[in-house]
Amino acid sequence: MEALDNLIIKLNRLPGVGIKSAQRLAFHILAMSDEDAQALAGSITEAKARVHYCPVCGNFTENELCSVCADQKRTSELICVVESARDVIFMERIHEFRGKYHVLGGVLSPMDGIGPDELRIKELLSRIENEGVKELILATNPDVEGEATASYLAKLIKPLGVRVSRIAHGIPIGGNLEYVDDVTLAKSIENRREM
Amino acid sequence: MEALDNLIIKLNRLPGVGIKSAQRLAFHILAMSDEDAQALAGSITEAKARVHYCPVCGNFTENELCSVCADQKRTSELICVVESARDVIFMERIHEFRGKYHVLGGVLSPMDGIGPDELRIKELLSRIENEGVKELILATNPDVEGEATASYLAKLIKPLGVRVSRIAHGIPIGGNLEYVDDVTLAKSIENRREM
Repeated sequence: MEALDNLIIKLNRLPGVGIKSAQRLAFHILAMSDEDAQALAGSITEAKARVHYCPVCGNFTENELCSVCADQKRTSELICVVESARDVIFMERIHEFRGKYHVLGGVLSPMDGIGPDELRIKELLSRIENEGVKELILATNPDVEGEATASYLAKLIKPLGVRVSRIAHGIPIGGNLEYVDDVTLAKSIENRREM
Repeated sequence: MEALDNLIIKLNRLPGVGIKSAQRLAFHILAMSDEDAQALAGSITEAKARVHYCPVCGNFTENELCSVCADQKRTSELICVVESARDVIFMERIHEFRGKYHVLGGVLSPMDGIGPDELRIKELLSRIENEGVKELILATNPDVEGEATASYLAKLIKPLGVRVSRIAHGIPIGGNLEYVDDVTLAKSIENRREM
């Protein structure tokens, strides 16, 4: 069945959707009412048509600026640099950060052909020049590429007279020494704080 | 962001897609090229428009009859009764069954208001009457509703002079007694075969 197979293939290409899940989803969609299936297809088209990148920070928005950049009460003096627009949601959930964001749109990854020019670094430098930025928090993920990207940015931006900090690595709150991996445990010793 | 939230809500309603997965999928879709996103939405619309139920067995098809019912080499003397069209795919994968199928479209579940009239049982009786059916294999799932549905069908159909059988329950091949649940283990003793 061509149309069904095609739907399964398309679903299978989504992240985290294996072939079994794609089959289950496809059969679920076929069993949906026509209205519900149309609403699902329509929500994809609609989101693609209406959502675009914020020209300032690179976050997703349906308006001219994203809600963070448009918020007059938030300061541009403190900018949190993240890999993707999704990370903004995670950071916003803690309701504590009152600065703004800058979405890189990825991390440095020479193997995949992603160098500094493929990320929104030029835009970051121009914000530092024009928005009176005093501190940059580098919140890329604590993996190889995320650390390399943070190091690269720190080396590039510290000479401009901006404070550059990195989010802390260590034992998660509520975590247990037994179940923490060795690298994190080593980091938690290295980054120990005097009490 | 209305369009993004709407997409996340719609994806979250799919089976096995939690709120975190729905978010990840939605952001992935936003990052897709316009063509790929359109192809995904289009494959949903297309599948819904072209795929329908086989009027004989209730399987999904894009033609008048499903591929199994249209296959002249397969016999109607042996009919395998399954819950859903997806189960037909699983059965077909073993390449051994040469009879036909009958898809019930669910299982008896009085709590959810699903009685015999909500399943394709009338259609099954009419096939038994008209297609020279000699044996019915009940392949509903081995859970409470699946067993109840199999019992109901056996009681209903055995008096019509048709052989009715149930798929075997027991230890999976390559399985290990240690990891098999108690009910399955008990079944494997109860259904033991002389060697």
